[in-house]
Amino acid sequence: MLNFDYCSPTRLIFGKGVQKEVGPVLKPHTQKLLLHYGGQNIRKSGLYDEITASLRAAGVPFAELGGVVPNPRLSLVHEGIDLCRQEGVDLILAVGGGSVIDSSKAIAAGYYYNGDVWDLYESGRPVDKALPVATVLTIPAAGSEASNSSVITNEEKQLKYGYGCQSLRPLVSFVNPELFFTLPAHQIANGVADMMSHIFERYFSHTPHVDLTDSLCEGTLRTIMRNALLVRENPRNYEAWCEVGFGGTVAHIDLLGLGRAQDWACHGMEHELSALYDVAHGAGLAVLTPNWMQYVYRENTPLFVQFAVNIMGVSGSYRDPDAIVAEGIARLRAFFKAMGLPGTLTELGIGEENLELMAKKATGAAFGQEDPLGGLKKLAWQDVLNIYRLAL
Amino acid sequence: MLNFDYCSPTRLIFGKGVQKEVGPVLKPHTQKLLLHYGGQNIRKSGLYDEITASLRAAGVPFAELGGVVPNPRLSLVHEGIDLCRQEGVDLILAVGGGSVIDSSKAIAAGYYYNGDVWDLYESGRPVDKALPVATVLTIPAAGSEASNSSVITNEEKQLKYGYGCQSLRPLVSFVNPELFFTLPAHQIANGVADMMSHIFERYFSHTPHVDLTDSLCEGTLRTIMRNALLVRENPRNYEAWCEVGFGGTVAHIDLLGLGRAQDWACHGMEHELSALYDVAHGAGLAVLTPNWMQYVYRENTPLFVQFAVNIMGVSGSYRDPDAIVAEGIARLRAFFKAMGLPGTLTELGIGEENLELMAKKATGAAFGQEDPLGGLKKLAWQDVLNIYRLAL
Repeated sequence: MLNFDYCSPTRLIFGKGVQKEVGPVLKPHTQKLLLHYGGQNIRKSGLYDEITASLRAAGVPFAELGGVVPNPRLSLVHEGIDLCRQEGVDLILAVGGGSVIDSSKAIAAGYYYNGDVWDLYESGRPVDKALPVATVLTIPAAGSEASNSSVITNEEKQLKYGYGCQSLRPLVSFVNPELFFTLPAHQIANGVADMMSHIFERYFSHTPHVDLTDSLCEGTLRTIMRNALLVRENPRNYEAWCEVGFGGTVAHIDLLGLGRAQDWACHGMEHELSALYDVAHGAGLAVLTPNWMQYVYRENTPLFVQFAVNIMGVSGSYRDPDAIVAEGIARLRAFFKAMGLPGTLTELGIGEENLELMAKKATGAAFGQEDPLGGLKKLAWQDVLNIYRLAL
Repeated sequence: MLNFDYCSPTRLIFGKGVQKEVGPVLKPHTQKLLLHYGGQNIRKSGLYDEITASLRAAGVPFAELGGVVPNPRLSLVHEGIDLCRQEGVDLILAVGGGSVIDSSKAIAAGYYYNGDVWDLYESGRPVDKALPVATVLTIPAAGSEASNSSVITNEEKQLKYGYGCQSLRPLVSFVNPELFFTLPAHQIANGVADMMSHIFERYFSHTPHVDLTDSLCEGTLRTIMRNALLVRENPRNYEAWCEVGFGGTVAHIDLLGLGRAQDWACHGMEHELSALYDVAHGAGLAVLTPNWMQYVYRENTPLFVQFAVNIMGVSGSYRDPDAIVAEGIARLRAFFKAMGLPGTLTELGIGEENLELMAKKATGAAFGQEDPLGGLKKLAWQDVLNIYRLAL
């Protein structure tokens, strides 16, 4: 186990009706907040009215900025920073999914930063000070409600970068699984693929003797997969949503990644798909992950046997580890298919045309600064291209 | 799953050599701290010198109070509160195991409290304000390094009460498993029994659909048990200690108990043993837990089957659930025995003489305010007496 330094201070208020507590809970922390959200969904569902009523009843003034889109844009972040400065905002309340929360975090990081906030996403340099962010989660997926990370798309440069910084961990997040009842099937599936990937990125690690986090990863993955199928069958299954929703948060608070090297190659490869083709992040991950596994598993066959047995429930003869692994990967593909997720890049409308460009961007080779992706196996741009091709 | 409101803000600095960072990490948080510890062990081991050197190098002034004993005493807590007030202390640094940390928390809670701090332990009333506590852990067991709880013994009244309050969660804890190398075998075993009990108290719950926390409980228990045997075999096994040490913290941050009713009958029953006989808490728990299981399992046989299968690794025919459960409990007893823990009250030097008194104290019946213990099965004083007798 490696040394670690960890703090996950986000207060999690979880369960039925918790969004109605937003006003009184935030009141001691703010003089004026920015209510940040996406499109019309939260108005149609009545959530907007519930939250603004709670804020008004508690006497919390607020400004508003809607319009966040999936793969949230830098231009709106700039607008949000300007608005917060003009309006004297001291807290951002994100009402939405990972895109809205990530956009809020970018505004929060940029507020005190003397320069373009995109610098931070390019350099990865942490900031000591950011506006506090609170969230009301409407889509369980990104885990951004308690994580230190934010992913923003620079639409001018066609770049999608993740940024992680301790000061971006939300102050408080409200998670009511009832709010997930109306999500469309594809959004449920994308979310599940995303949270699973957050665990896989931590699980596939050469670091020896990480029994505890291995078992936490395995249990969380099994729970998410079992309950995701229940939710797909009946999106109004509150109890199953609790497991998936809570699982999505646990997947990304980084408890499951403590003391171990992490991978993150699939996220790196997927960000290129989203940046260039605007595909849903979860769908891209569902396509890439099994192909990545197939490409890299021989780097640590015993660990992939463990994945197949402990997560995918494969049993049988251990005399042929390759067969065990193959069965594990096949079961993962079958699970994604059962969730209605795509299995190939072709299904995402992606052909050979930009694979080499994306592989070179993902590894930095396109910018003359190649930095191999991943940890379990260091992937040069040619490796990434091979994986993209496997996934066609 | 039940609604919950959770925040575990303790920063955890884990791994080799981390105690040397105490000075620079605490410097921004304190003008003067109280160094609180037990006996001579930390002087003999050199830990006292390492920590005071780190504090001095960082320019952190400190007062000192040693003398904490197992089942830490209220009288020393009173002394600590007075000392902190006289010396203008603004942070307490606990260097030791659960007793030292719990004593520190009691001082921290009492510092701002206008009255006897014991009132809080009797009433359970939370306090908004307490001194911040930092810890350097020397015995993995109580989980107090990141929990909200503290257990104090009122030696005059022969009472041992637990108190939980969010403001008692430590600011930062330093956990270096190398510091555990010199623990004697019985202290290792007691600690393991204690951390296991922290999980059992949360695991045995009637709350339905708690898949995620069930699996986290099971994984953490399996990890602790597997590695505890390695540590018993070789107390200098760093990697195994990492699993046990980290497991002990995870066991009690309450992540594993979120959204579910909890039990805590075994802790309640054990506190009477420690208060009256001054036995080690973990040893008392190792004796009581299997007998409690035997007494209550029919309240939820399927859950105890799950315990036997998922934690104790029992397999075989499911047609006879009682047999599966019996095998699970037998394996738990065998594990405790393999750790060198006692299996009966007799081995702890406890006979029939005070069982009824202790049963009545544990349930409040002795004070005319009977409040049954536990959640899975509500235990009246007669039930507690039955369990004590089973354990003789």
